[in-house]
Amino acid sequence: MPALRTALLQSSGELGDVAANLKLLDEAAARAAAAGAGLLLAPELFLTGYAIGADLARLAEPADGPSARAVAAVAVRYGLAVGYGYPERDTERHGVLYNAAQVFGADGEVLLHYRKTHLYGAFERQWFTPGDDSVVQAELGGLTVGLMICYDVEFPENVRAQALAGTDLLLVPTALMHPAEVVAESVVPVRAFENQMYVAYANRVGTEGEFEFVGLSTLAGPDGTARARAGRGTDLVLGDVDPALLAASRTDNPYLSDRRPGLYGSLAV
Amino acid sequence: MPALRTALLQSSGELGDVAANLKLLDEAAARAAAAGAGLLLAPELFLTGYAIGADLARLAEPADGPSARAVAAVAVRYGLAVGYGYPERDTERHGVLYNAAQVFGADGEVLLHYRKTHLYGAFERQWFTPGDDSVVQAELGGLTVGLMICYDVEFPENVRAQALAGTDLLLVPTALMHPAEVVAESVVPVRAFENQMYVAYANRVGTEGEFEFVGLSTLAGPDGTARARAGRGTDLVLGDVDPALLAASRTDNPYLSDRRPGLYGSLAV
Repeated sequence: MPALRTALLQSSGELGDVAANLKLLDEAAARAAAAGAGLLLAPELFLTGYAIGADLARLAEPADGPSARAVAAVAVRYGLAVGYGYPERDTERHGVLYNAAQVFGADGEVLLHYRKTHLYGAFERQWFTPGDDSVVQAELGGLTVGLMICYDVEFPENVRAQALAGTDLLLVPTALMHPAEVVAESVVPVRAFENQMYVAYANRVGTEGEFEFVGLSTLAGPDGTARARAGRGTDLVLGDVDPALLAASRTDNPYLSDRRPGLYGSLAV
Repeated sequence: MPALRTALLQSSGELGDVAANLKLLDEAAARAAAAGAGLLLAPELFLTGYAIGADLARLAEPADGPSARAVAAVAVRYGLAVGYGYPERDTERHGVLYNAAQVFGADGEVLLHYRKTHLYGAFERQWFTPGDDSVVQAELGGLTVGLMICYDVEFPENVRAQALAGTDLLLVPTALMHPAEVVAESVVPVRAFENQMYVAYANRVGTEGEFEFVGLSTLAGPDGTARARAGRGTDLVLGDVDPALLAASRTDNPYLSDRRPGLYGSLAV
């Protein structure tokens, strides 16, 4: 099975300008596809910006809204899967927003749709309702791919639930801030190692309001190393998700089969 | 509350020579106490050696055997707590051995006693029966201290169970081998960060049979940094467990209160 080349778009786009961000996503998809990528991942809330206050509500769309259809068209145009974060408006519950992400396949169909389950800090809790479905998965290029957002990946239980469900590659659009660089530098690679999976972590950059995003987007492999890592500025970095490396690493590191679930009951109550 | 200075003895002692290893522990305790330490931690199976085959059975003792009483006397002699790993003979089930560790207080009483719950590899499974009590705790210097052994700490669920029970400082005698350096360098600091605790990880060094131990003993703090770290050779390293730093870090990183246990049911079945 060939490796899945994965592109991480590290960018904060243009705050509050959805059309501009769709154009940036189109340009990144063109570059990623030209470099042989089968998947492009953009950061948390890439569609609109993160620290834009009430504009989150104004710019929120349903999961199948016009911007979603525009992203699906990008995926079809360049023949690769495209994932991104956006504020989602609940179509049935008035005023309810989710910090959401979704991935479209190269055929323009939805592969993955997710609502952030672990909201971070006062800002997110002010605007968003947490999702209640923590493990979403789909098949892509022979791999089982999962999706979560930023703070979600910092909870080892949450990533373990993905691993137990069979995830090979976990996609994590993020908005990691100073001084939490340790998350990109160490936590994400350790999640990949302890769960024997790949983790793709695509971050924002620069300053938005009170937040300073730190870049450091990372594709971490099951050996606990960064197979690709960006610096602090806007970038598009690529790395390969290699099924052969994954299989060999799982043989050497049988964490999932050496677990003793009977000892972990306190985690779920 | 004053900081608890913690000394990590990084040594493989003399393989198969219990008397020599008790003498090394005595000398390390003298040095640690002179440096102001309130706790000394020695590696996994320090009392006897690790890769000593059938000598593990020959040298195994009950938890309150003569070597345990000798270690308790060391703790009393220098006025600090002393922890170490040893092969434990079950006094009721003939032929049953545990990969065990215990900690004596400065008063010579047992503070902590633990039997490794996650055995590593074919060698340990050949000789040892796994323990079934994964969370043991005691109070030391105003801190809640827990104890586990080596491979146990690589399972995030297992350390999370300690954190949920209130552990401030987790003691981990270990026998970490090449090429798993990532465990000392990254996994242990991440455990400390994600659980907002200190982790003291004391390793063996050098070659024993097929195993090459890598040293790198680490005292990791709740900010995810190594507050003390040894190199590859025999050493005694010291670091402070600071309750004020711990309290401040927990305010900044509310992982335990931001958990969503209702989403983690699959981990315990």
